[in-house]
Amino acid sequence: MNYKSIREEAFEANMKLPKLGLVLFTFGNVSAADINKGVFAIKPSGVPYEDLLPEKMVIVDFDGVTVEGSLRPSSDTKTHAVLYKHWESVAGIVHTHSTYGTAWAQSLRAIPIYGTTHADHLTVDIPCAPPMDDSMIKGNYEYETGFQIINHLKDKNLSYKEVEMILVGNHAPFSWGKTAAKAVYNSAILESVAQMALFTEQIEGKVNRMKDSLIQKHYDRKHGADAYYGQ
Amino acid sequence: MNYKSIREEAFEANMKLPKLGLVLFTFGNVSAADINKGVFAIKPSGVPYEDLLPEKMVIVDFDGVTVEGSLRPSSDTKTHAVLYKHWESVAGIVHTHSTYGTAWAQSLRAIPIYGTTHADHLTVDIPCAPPMDDSMIKGNYEYETGFQIINHLKDKNLSYKEVEMILVGNHAPFSWGKTAAKAVYNSAILESVAQMALFTEQIEGKVNRMKDSLIQKHYDRKHGADAYYGQ
Amino acid sequence: MNYKSIREEAFEANMKLPKLGLVLFTFGNVSAADINKGVFAIKPSGVPYEDLLPEKMVIVDFDGVTVEGSLRPSSDTKTHAVLYKHWESVAGIVHTHSTYGTAWAQSLRAIPIYGTTHADHLTVDIPCAPPMDDSMIKGNYEYETGFQIINHLKDKNLSYKEVEMILVGNHAPFSWGKTAAKAVYNSAILESVAQMALFTEQIEGKVNRMKDSLIQKHYDRKHGADAYYGQ
Amino acid sequence: MNYKSIREEAFEANMKLPKLGLVLFTFGNVSAADINKGVFAIKPSGVPYEDLLPEKMVIVDFDGVTVEGSLRPSSDTKTHAVLYKHWESVAGIVHTHSTYGTAWAQSLRAIPIYGTTHADHLTVDIPCAPPMDDSMIKGNYEYETGFQIINHLKDKNLSYKEVEMILVGNHAPFSWGKTAAKAVYNSAILESVAQMALFTEQIEGKVNRMKDSLIQKHYDRKHGADAYYGQ
Repeated sequence: MNYKSIREEAFEANMKLPKLGLVLFTFGNVSAADINKGVFAIKPSGVPYEDLLPEKMVIVDFDGVTVEGSLRPSSDTKTHAVLYKHWESVAGIVHTHSTYGTAWAQSLRAIPIYGTTHADHLTVDIPCAPPMDDSMIKGNYEYETGFQIINHLKDKNLSYKEVEMILVGNHAPFSWGKTAAKAVYNSAILESVAQMALFTEQIEGKVNRMKDSLIQKHYDRKHGADAYYGQ
Repeated sequence: MNYKSIREEAFEANMKLPKLGLVLFTFGNVSAADINKGVFAIKPSGVPYEDLLPEKMVIVDFDGVTVEGSLRPSSDTKTHAVLYKHWESVAGIVHTHSTYGTAWAQSLRAIPIYGTTHADHLTVDIPCAPPMDDSMIKGNYEYETGFQIINHLKDKNLSYKEVEMILVGNHAPFSWGKTAAKAVYNSAILESVAQMALFTEQIEGKVNRMKDSLIQKHYDRKHGADAYYGQ
Repeated sequence: MNYKSIREEAFEANMKLPKLGLVLFTFGNVSAADINKGVFAIKPSGVPYEDLLPEKMVIVDFDGVTVEGSLRPSSDTKTHAVLYKHWESVAGIVHTHSTYGTAWAQSLRAIPIYGTTHADHLTVDIPCAPPMDDSMIKGNYEYETGFQIINHLKDKNLSYKEVEMILVGNHAPFSWGKTAAKAVYNSAILESVAQMALFTEQIEGKVNRMKDSLIQKHYDRKHGADAYYGQ
Repeated sequence: MNYKSIREEAFEANMKLPKLGLVLFTFGNVSAADINKGVFAIKPSGVPYEDLLPEKMVIVDFDGVTVEGSLRPSSDTKTHAVLYKHWESVAGIVHTHSTYGTAWAQSLRAIPIYGTTHADHLTVDIPCAPPMDDSMIKGNYEYETGFQIINHLKDKNLSYKEVEMILVGNHAPFSWGKTAAKAVYNSAILESVAQMALFTEQIEGKVNRMKDSLIQKHYDRKHGADAYYGQ
């Protein structure tokens, strides 16, 4: 069996979703890509987390064609493929139906930037792509979901390298990163920020976004040229 | 001891309720039916989950008469019996007082279809049957609860084969399926969808239901003629 | 060491509070009474649950005087003593600061009876005693808390035998029963009902109490002359 | 390796944060000070809790200069240093992004004193320092965060010896105490009180603070000259 490294990486990352409380049953999937080979390992569709194994991961190329594996890949595989094909530095993608993130997606609202927990990771509201046109839904749906994400970031003038998470309206969150582990981390951040933002608005209905200087400071502590967070 | 298969099935399914966080103490029950024999195995009334065993399940026929077992069956047994008697393809039924589902039932509102987590399982709002007339309450209450469920689905032009869950007003959720395990799965789905729907309305007070094309697409991915979810 | 039976009973019941998620740190206490001997065993004050042992329970009489034990009893001991002294059939009392019950107590509202989860246990709103007069607060505070509970039930024409739980305004819940285990059970019921009632009002702002016939039916299923719940 | 005692104390206290549900990933830090030596042990920056060890703690003096340790200390180290330098009796400090506390901080509201759970620990609202001026944010940010906390307490006429917790606006909670363990305890109290206060306002929109006599009584039970809580 080939692609051992991304199989292991995808397996480990998938197994983190239930531990982080981000999925019920099989409602989530993580993929890990080998950018040089142009393939990614993804969770098989509908298989319970307790039955997963690295060798059950399905290897798919960036056009969504299965390269290795006897199981059917996640029903969201084409969304992953489109994103890998268009985003050269991304090597991990996560989709969950996490409770608070999904509630924001269902409300069709971007998550406003209210505090440093949010600003530690991105400097703008977590975007919410609108639901697709009917023609896209009835067409190649999962493939178009990828384009909906790409195009919404473009419409908002956002870079996938700086904004590593999005809500898809009436659906649920997607996140990504340079590794599958980082993409899972981002999905947990999104859920936590989504929860805090709801409670913030419940505590104070007329709350404002935090100010730009504080957003920039916190983002730069972790991600700026002179970042000093971590080892 | 007879009916070993449905005893085991009912036992396993009942034990999943506390693991899924759907019950406090003994506030829930699952039954598993043998359609050919016209009987089902159900949890004994008021017995803590930690004391359950397959041999403690009570075997009851579709008229609600105990066939085998020394313990008293769940107080909701007649509701199960009525549903089995009238719904020929159902072989598992669950009743819980899960927190969010019960809150919607207490509010007397159907759960609006706000996102794909919901549409992956049914294409309409999760119905909420109104509380029964006083004469039904004072009569054969649990028996009438079954008819209240059956009749509310009829009133709403819904098929029990497509809508496998309901709220009973001022009471709590019921779910069902072709197996007891599927019925338990449905009770967890209902609870998750109920939670997300509440948060969705809290985030955006004027939220609309999702559009029909997206509902249909997600339902068909899992349940349509060309379904491609799972193995 | 004497009073082994109530020491064990109080120990077991106290240890259930953290397992049921009803307490943070040491913010709760259970006592178990021997009605014939006129004494009860209660948790020592401020001792972490992980350090508790049956022999650390303090034996106190119904006037609040320590009979056996070297540790200081719970600071709420006199409240327990007053209730045992005046309520002849009660042999277990619980006090917690459980999250949702305490929030209702802080809001000074009784918990409205919205569904069968509530009606399975009592037929009226869970009462909320108002905060005490300043003279009572500055006097024998814990002793007066007991009287505040007793008097509020009287004012509302409620019997402690039928209503086994109460909120004390700006403070937190108390519950009781014929055993310490039953009192703990009641404190978990109160918390669950309190949570559901909040969510019910959030789902539907203009929600009404459930109707009397349904309240009575559910209460009688468990507690009436012809009760048929349990074994 | 030196400073064994505060290394152990800081390690133990840091490990309690995930157990108490107060942190996601590495979003929190605890320090333990040796007041006589003028140093404190603090969590290294960005190190997962499961990889922590007492010998990985970084020893820093009250000017924020590392005294011993090869890892980079928490990015919030200078905030801790400023507080230790100005508050002579404090030997433990905690910073978390706990969910409810952070939501209040994001709403820029102090947490109103609604009940005895709050009054058992402090007699006033949990203060919320406003976000800093832009010049402070762009300057020595973490250092200024310490002064923002000190100055807000002064503005409100509060003593750090009586009020051992604060929210920093648009950021998150800080707490402290005579030991690191006490500071962690305070961070859990803040989170619990923050949660109850939100639910209290949701239950009753026009809720008032509790009355002074009851606040004072509960605070004095635990902290007054004649305190009778604990052993």
